[in-house]
Amino acid sequence: MAKTTKAKKASPSPKVLILMGSDSDLPIMEEVSKVFDGFGIPYEMTVSSAHRTPERTLKIAGGAAERGIKIIIAGAGAAAHLAGFIASQTTLPVIGIPIDATPMRGLDALLATVQMPGGVPVATMAIGKAGAKNAGLFASEILALSDKRLANKLVLDRQAQAAKVEEKAKKLDDARQ
Amino acid sequence: MAKTTKAKKASPSPKVLILMGSDSDLPIMEEVSKVFDGFGIPYEMTVSSAHRTPERTLKIAGGAAERGIKIIIAGAGAAAHLAGFIASQTTLPVIGIPIDATPMRGLDALLATVQMPGGVPVATMAIGKAGAKNAGLFASEILALSDKRLANKLVLDRQAQAAKVEEKAKKLDDARQ
Amino acid sequence: MAKTTKAKKASPSPKVLILMGSDSDLPIMEEVSKVFDGFGIPYEMTVSSAHRTPERTLKIAGGAAERGIKIIIAGAGAAAHLAGFIASQTTLPVIGIPIDATPMRGLDALLATVQMPGGVPVATMAIGKAGAKNAGLFASEILALSDKRLANKLVLDRQAQAAKVEEKAKKLDDARQ
Amino acid sequence: MAKTTKAKKASPSPKVLILMGSDSDLPIMEEVSKVFDGFGIPYEMTVSSAHRTPERTLKIAGGAAERGIKIIIAGAGAAAHLAGFIASQTTLPVIGIPIDATPMRGLDALLATVQMPGGVPVATMAIGKAGAKNAGLFASEILALSDKRLANKLVLDRQAQAAKVEEKAKKLDDARQ
Amino acid sequence: MAKTTKAKKASPSPKVLILMGSDSDLPIMEEVSKVFDGFGIPYEMTVSSAHRTPERTLKIAGGAAERGIKIIIAGAGAAAHLAGFIASQTTLPVIGIPIDATPMRGLDALLATVQMPGGVPVATMAIGKAGAKNAGLFASEILALSDKRLANKLVLDRQAQAAKVEEKAKKLDDARQ
Amino acid sequence: MAKTTKAKKASPSPKVLILMGSDSDLPIMEEVSKVFDGFGIPYEMTVSSAHRTPERTLKIAGGAAERGIKIIIAGAGAAAHLAGFIASQTTLPVIGIPIDATPMRGLDALLATVQMPGGVPVATMAIGKAGAKNAGLFASEILALSDKRLANKLVLDRQAQAAKVEEKAKKLDDARQ
Amino acid sequence: MAKTTKAKKASPSPKVLILMGSDSDLPIMEEVSKVFDGFGIPYEMTVSSAHRTPERTLKIAGGAAERGIKIIIAGAGAAAHLAGFIASQTTLPVIGIPIDATPMRGLDALLATVQMPGGVPVATMAIGKAGAKNAGLFASEILALSDKRLANKLVLDRQAQAAKVEEKAKKLDDARQ
Amino acid sequence: MAKTTKAKKASPSPKVLILMGSDSDLPIMEEVSKVFDGFGIPYEMTVSSAHRTPERTLKIAGGAAERGIKIIIAGAGAAAHLAGFIASQTTLPVIGIPIDATPMRGLDALLATVQMPGGVPVATMAIGKAGAKNAGLFASEILALSDKRLANKLVLDRQAQAAKVEEKAKKLDDARQ
Repeated sequence: MAKTTKAKKASPSPKVLILMGSDSDLPIMEEVSKVFDGFGIPYEMTVSSAHRTPERTLKIAGGAAERGIKIIIAGAGAAAHLAGFIASQTTLPVIGIPIDATPMRGLDALLATVQMPGGVPVATMAIGKAGAKNAGLFASEILALSDKRLANKLVLDRQAQAAKVEEKAKKLDDARQ
Repeated sequence: MAKTTKAKKASPSPKVLILMGSDSDLPIMEEVSKVFDGFGIPYEMTVSSAHRTPERTLKIAGGAAERGIKIIIAGAGAAAHLAGFIASQTTLPVIGIPIDATPMRGLDALLATVQMPGGVPVATMAIGKAGAKNAGLFASEILALSDKRLANKLVLDRQAQAAKVEEKAKKLDDARQ
Repeated sequence: MAKTTKAKKASPSPKVLILMGSDSDLPIMEEVSKVFDGFGIPYEMTVSSAHRTPERTLKIAGGAAERGIKIIIAGAGAAAHLAGFIASQTTLPVIGIPIDATPMRGLDALLATVQMPGGVPVATMAIGKAGAKNAGLFASEILALSDKRLANKLVLDRQAQAAKVEEKAKKLDDARQ
Repeated sequence: MAKTTKAKKASPSPKVLILMGSDSDLPIMEEVSKVFDGFGIPYEMTVSSAHRTPERTLKIAGGAAERGIKIIIAGAGAAAHLAGFIASQTTLPVIGIPIDATPMRGLDALLATVQMPGGVPVATMAIGKAGAKNAGLFASEILALSDKRLANKLVLDRQAQAAKVEEKAKKLDDARQ
Repeated sequence: MAKTTKAKKASPSPKVLILMGSDSDLPIMEEVSKVFDGFGIPYEMTVSSAHRTPERTLKIAGGAAERGIKIIIAGAGAAAHLAGFIASQTTLPVIGIPIDATPMRGLDALLATVQMPGGVPVATMAIGKAGAKNAGLFASEILALSDKRLANKLVLDRQAQAAKVEEKAKKLDDARQ
Repeated sequence: MAKTTKAKKASPSPKVLILMGSDSDLPIMEEVSKVFDGFGIPYEMTVSSAHRTPERTLKIAGGAAERGIKIIIAGAGAAAHLAGFIASQTTLPVIGIPIDATPMRGLDALLATVQMPGGVPVATMAIGKAGAKNAGLFASEILALSDKRLANKLVLDRQAQAAKVEEKAKKLDDARQ
Repeated sequence: MAKTTKAKKASPSPKVLILMGSDSDLPIMEEVSKVFDGFGIPYEMTVSSAHRTPERTLKIAGGAAERGIKIIIAGAGAAAHLAGFIASQTTLPVIGIPIDATPMRGLDALLATVQMPGGVPVATMAIGKAGAKNAGLFASEILALSDKRLANKLVLDRQAQAAKVEEKAKKLDDARQ
Repeated sequence: MAKTTKAKKASPSPKVLILMGSDSDLPIMEEVSKVFDGFGIPYEMTVSSAHRTPERTLKIAGGAAERGIKIIIAGAGAAAHLAGFIASQTTLPVIGIPIDATPMRGLDALLATVQMPGGVPVATMAIGKAGAKNAGLFASEILALSDKRLANKLVLDRQAQAAKVEEKAKKLDDARQ
């Protein structure tokens, strides 16, 4: 798997595989990797298309479980088949992020990702950056089921989120007085 | 390819492969085969899912060109990846039929079929029976480019369509006098 | 938690909590429990509304982690807030199922479930029965990360799905000969 | 409630609580406060998220009636649960403003706000600034039911609106002569 | 106003006016009157169209405040102008109910009701019966601001709703044991 | 033009041409002819498809002005090109009726009829029967510009409509007392 | 009617009334007046809102027929009631132009204009400038029914349009050689 | 056909006709010609509108088969009738490209192109540039059925696409190390 990006050299083996259908999706998909960087979760991140490099995608996704990958996250726009394509190749949990890449404003990617037929699940997140961030958090929630330290970090992250909202509320309050 | 349906035994080798994602799509997809039956075009028709039997689909679609197949027609509902999945595996013309199989009334299947990224085309038809009939006609139009008798049949078919409309107009006229 | 349904009395403690916003959602949500019954995964299933019984929902969801629950699955229609409401109360993985319960045909429930803001993820499945079945399978995929027997069952289930498709293909083939 | 913004210090106690899910909603939500500033209606305005600070939101909304608040106005984007979440906690009138904050252009926020199930009403306004202004006016109409001076101001405001339209019509007329 | 329906003869004068654009809307709009019957709130209910009987509508709505009406509720389908038309004639609070009466499934009525321009508010409820019930409840919440007994009834109604959900949860629990 | 339907033999020459794309549209399009029958406006009505009988359509529409036709009304479903096709062939006023004939519920027909590019107008009515009735009324309004008796009939029709609404209001009132 | 704009002083009395809901609609609505200026059709153009100046709108529209107005054209955005409101007050032909003025991109204005209930027709044009231009052309087509010179101008205008397209085709051809 | 653009003078006679409804569509439609330029496929490209130059369009499309044209590609926006109009005139394969040219963001053009009634097929591609590129590729796939060298080029093109994705993956990998 020389072509995939390792989070850190000689780090513990990656637990999550992040795939995007096109390198133009990178500004969205970095929201996923930021979450993992923040929690210290090792991951792989690479570009592979369901339609343009199906074999490469099969190899990366199909061999993921054997490499120790626990969760696969796939982001794609347009007729976004990437997450579903991967889900058909593995029984690892697959998380899909619809990306706004066409005049349909992500509605195409959303429906192509979420409306999977019964039997082959894809856990779908919101369109775009919010969805990418949440994909990272949701994967972390799964990993935290067997990692108490991570579980604690998630609780702290929520508290930090809440504190940030309260701080903004305070700023608004101060500004208006 | 013992598992695929041949149009007629010992007939000339099939020129079109008709795939559907689920056997519940059969009432729609038979509109395709009716067109081929009418024109005497040999075809294969079978069920294979992009998500539930990806390997079987790969085998059927990937080997199609070698078996002498010229065109592949795929119908699917929901997050309809079948046509795009096949298109990623072949440079034969692939025609997609979106099927109304969820509460989204085929909008999901339409967008998941038509919004293919640049590089991997799927020729998309209307949702449902009209689209299935037109998939059969469009494939016939392609085959007619190198088959003058078929080209004539297509012209006659259009004339028959026109005659039918005129007949109905006459009936309406008679009924109202 | 006397008001929740235990899968089997004296069975191992439930690992998944299934919530629905209204008892009219039961025919959909039983697709979830069927999956768990098939795999022998213990679960709780009950009715609780984000809007009509917010406190009850808080109690059931908030205390879930302490009861040993690993995953929460929530199905709701209309302005479907149930999954998001629960996700705001826990860092356990929350899976949402949009239900077609209004003239908007589930588009309202889909957008109200999937478009969660960054920070509070809900893993969203397809609208209706397909989504409910997939919620069960996706939860099983998560649990299988630390349960090899379950992981094997999931692989077998995929193979059974594939066999079923092939069987249907064969039937279609036989019927047409 | 030290964290909420009071319209004016030592002014009569606030009658309306304005909540927004994120401080990025402020440019929209200030259309609400402008209306109250114009009519001299005392109000509180603060940031609190249904998902990121559910407890804070509960505290602010749940205690509103006791603080003398008569009406709660909530604006949120994406899967906009804020208004519905508050409505589930109070029998005060709750007014919701859907905000265009995602590629879905506010359709997600609109459906997540307006499609409330029977039993827990949210009075929904238009997406964005027009809706925010109207939320302020609608709250004023409610308060005017027991405040004749305010009722008169509302009538005058309508007349001023009409005069402004007529003035613009005159300008157009003059410009074209 | 002989043509409007009084809730009960010789009862206290009506506080709410319920209008529907067509008598075919009655099965939806009776959800409003059921709420008022339950709480003992006197009301008028009649049919009047924005487009077919604009003058009648003007007379009924324009004179409402003088008759002691506090709130107007209007339900209409298609290009649902009724609520907005009334709102342009009064500064009483106007509540709109979009009705699913065309192939657009109420999306037309929803957008025509909720997307009011700034300056003339219509408080919009969900499409159909849920919206009609909530219109009744929301009007009651407004009236309860100056009627403690009604305020108590609303709290009890919420508790009854909650109890009903819990009862259904119990039934589900019992049925599954 | 032997194939078109004349309203009445030996009657004054037809003033309106009613076209429908398929005879399955007749139950909708009869709403148009009912209006003309009521007002005594002579018309032709026939079936002709933009796609299946383009030449016939050209002949009927192109020659309409010479036959004394003043207005053309066209109803079609799906990718409804009929009205636009006719409009490109004539400078007579063309009225289009979108028909709900596919899973898209008439949204396809509406957009394909109304979104005409600048230069070639089609006056579009509502989807289905309401639109067909209004097409008849709108054509009558045009003809009434040079026909005072018809203009009077239109005013009387509006009064009759209003009377019908008031009658229904009275019935509702009586039923509830 | 001092407040309305006359096309030219001392010119023949206006035949068309152009109304817009807001002066911000002027850049769109000038497409209508350009058509009339080109054809020498006298018109009035003014601003009047269905919601903000209902009485003014009533006066302008209600008295139009008496002033010799033959056709009324109304453009509005959001919950665009203007055209329907006018149509309810007159049996003159009313043409509606939906304007893209909200995040819904004109879908709200389109549905609020076109989905008129049976009995009160509004002839709806495309969203925005194309629709405005076509409203002008469609009104001209109506007036041309009793004005041969105008009818000729319309035919010439179509020919000029065609010539322009051919010229552009030629330019493209030249540029590519 | 002096007005159409020939790919190269004295080159083999054109095999594909590319039509666009307006010269403003050129930046999109050049994606089609780029594909043919790359593969050395001779083509004609010109502007002709279904609505503004119907006769010119009829002449160009109707005579295409006789000129040796094998495939027609048509791109149009708004109520995009061009492809369907051509398809009604020929039994050559017709490929349609919906163009995003109105506030409806190409949804109007998509539905007006793809939802063709049974009997007259249009092979529809994605909205905009991706669709235009794929129209070129799909036409090439059809031509490759009787042109082995072209078939090989298509296979190489797919390999080049795949190589490009892998290269981008490598760059991403390098950048992150």
